[in-house]
Amino acid sequence: MPACSSGVKLANMRRGAAQQEVDRTRPSLTAIQGLVHDVLDSVLAHMGAVLEADVPFINEVSFHLQRMRGKLFRPALLALANRTEERPDDREVALGAVIEIIHMATLVHDDSIDRSSMRRGRPTLNSRWGHKVSVIMGDYLYSRAMTEITRIGDLELIELAARVTNDLTIGEMVEIAHHGQLVEDPRQYFFLIEKKTASLISTACEMGAVIGAREQREPLKEYGRRLGMAFQLIDDLMDYGGEQAVMGKPVGTDLREGQVTFPLLAVLPHLSPAERRCVNAVFDPQEQATSDDIQRIVDVVRERGGIEATRRVAREYADRAREALVGLPSTPAREVMDAAVDYVLARDR
Amino acid sequence: MPACSSGVKLANMRRGAAQQEVDRTRPSLTAIQGLVHDVLDSVLAHMGAVLEADVPFINEVSFHLQRMRGKLFRPALLALANRTEERPDDREVALGAVIEIIHMATLVHDDSIDRSSMRRGRPTLNSRWGHKVSVIMGDYLYSRAMTEITRIGDLELIELAARVTNDLTIGEMVEIAHHGQLVEDPRQYFFLIEKKTASLISTACEMGAVIGAREQREPLKEYGRRLGMAFQLIDDLMDYGGEQAVMGKPVGTDLREGQVTFPLLAVLPHLSPAERRCVNAVFDPQEQATSDDIQRIVDVVRERGGIEATRRVAREYADRAREALVGLPSTPAREVMDAAVDYVLARDR
Repeated sequence: MPACSSGVKLANMRRGAAQQEVDRTRPSLTAIQGLVHDVLDSVLAHMGAVLEADVPFINEVSFHLQRMRGKLFRPALLALANRTEERPDDREVALGAVIEIIHMATLVHDDSIDRSSMRRGRPTLNSRWGHKVSVIMGDYLYSRAMTEITRIGDLELIELAARVTNDLTIGEMVEIAHHGQLVEDPRQYFFLIEKKTASLISTACEMGAVIGAREQREPLKEYGRRLGMAFQLIDDLMDYGGEQAVMGKPVGTDLREGQVTFPLLAVLPHLSPAERRCVNAVFDPQEQATSDDIQRIVDVVRERGGIEATRRVAREYADRAREALVGLPSTPAREVMDAAVDYVLARDR
Repeated sequence: MPACSSGVKLANMRRGAAQQEVDRTRPSLTAIQGLVHDVLDSVLAHMGAVLEADVPFINEVSFHLQRMRGKLFRPALLALANRTEERPDDREVALGAVIEIIHMATLVHDDSIDRSSMRRGRPTLNSRWGHKVSVIMGDYLYSRAMTEITRIGDLELIELAARVTNDLTIGEMVEIAHHGQLVEDPRQYFFLIEKKTASLISTACEMGAVIGAREQREPLKEYGRRLGMAFQLIDDLMDYGGEQAVMGKPVGTDLREGQVTFPLLAVLPHLSPAERRCVNAVFDPQEQATSDDIQRIVDVVRERGGIEATRRVAREYADRAREALVGLPSTPAREVMDAAVDYVLARDR
């Protein structure tokens, strides 16, 4: 399994003073987007053009989606990777739109299968128009992304888009297969997050390299993969309340949905028999877990150091993402990609 | 709208003696597949290889799908088109698999959004594994089709696959948009069936032409489009019981699902005020249509000649499909494609 060979160790991680310094600055997404702000505006405009159809209903739904303006984190990384040799290629706009539309498609189908009602402060497609629209509109988004990248006409790029779309679905299928099961092997978890999250972030960086910094393709792809792993680990940590649990903020959503993530995996071998029984009970198909049961597991994970363990692994991936940047020319883009690592690590602060 | 410009006229269709002769023979699909039987076996085997994943659960679901062996009508047409110049290209196997996997993906998502429980005598993915699996497995199929055609590496073919996948979703979105509405303009209906059905049959033929008979690309594409229109018209006619309504066979399914198809459209202008009120009532969102209401509309459509009118239009498309073959070299493949027209027309007999 790809994720296992990356040599992540839970222990022996030391945090340097410089690292702490950077963490304290809490880099904002705005700062990261700064260098490529104009590109991102063009990406948004281009997305609108790509998604336009002759069918008014499609435009209505697509307009609703576009108003859920995302963070454009992946197109930003693509544009940054495209600038690592300081000779950016202008296909970054179309490619950024393709990557963001693929991302949007995954969110639409995620919301559909999870029956989520809100996303980015707006009703999801399934809650607004129902199940049929969310399934087919997701298909529309995926297929428009493919027609758009085909228009660009570069086989290498098409291959990347096709492969990552397939990887994303493999990740989702693994997640569904594990649903409600206490899968204890961390390799399964790392395989899953690599497919469902790291793959797209990695592909965004790789595409940027292919068009603007071909010699840096491998390091930029690896940077993206490692950053993506850290990104998902922090996401999963936030579901256990992050470093400082915020009162009233919902926690344990993944657990409630039958998903085992790293914070729980990290503490599983260290539980008392009584604690272990609590965990088993939540995954017992015969029993209905209550909110108290879920909160109890969240508390156990926090008490047993699951948050710190997860952050350690995330930080190790983050450090290795930074390492991948070492051989790159010293450019503003590289600096911002370095700052993006801090942003990812500080998302739960 | 593309379908409107095709000059279909409801009246003035005459049926020649030769045509009747052919209808009586009821051409079987087996006869049509005969010439390309080996190719279709290879297509099936190739589909299995393409869909194989490192994830056991994906293989389990995909194996279930593959046992729902379809008619492979589209790969058969692709292989026939590939033989119109008698120098077939062996990419037909991979392309046939791509086309059939795309078709399979549409069926999986169709069953998911319609919550159908059976397909080809086996439980659908949604009834066997639930909603999540059906949505994501459909995505997996679409994306595997794209990675496979990217592997073949011909931009023209990739473009065709991407475009048709998008067309299929546009057709589905139009169908959803019309759901429960009495859309009376036949142009809307023709636009819909062109996107959701004719597009894939046409693309199968066009792909066969691109690899094996490039000079015949336009006529073969047109042949496929017209054949596809006839195919869907006959499908819609079967939902009203076909030429001779079979006792006990379910009818009015489309109507029950709020879809207006050609048999109803054809008779709408000729209804008595009382009949029209019945139709309006079925599409009244305030009312719940009963089985009797649906049966009443089916009876009205049959009494008012909706079956014959639909068959006339289907036959006109069929004749025009045959016309598209006229300039092609006289080969066994062309003969079989001619017989495929009869097969499509005779599907409800």
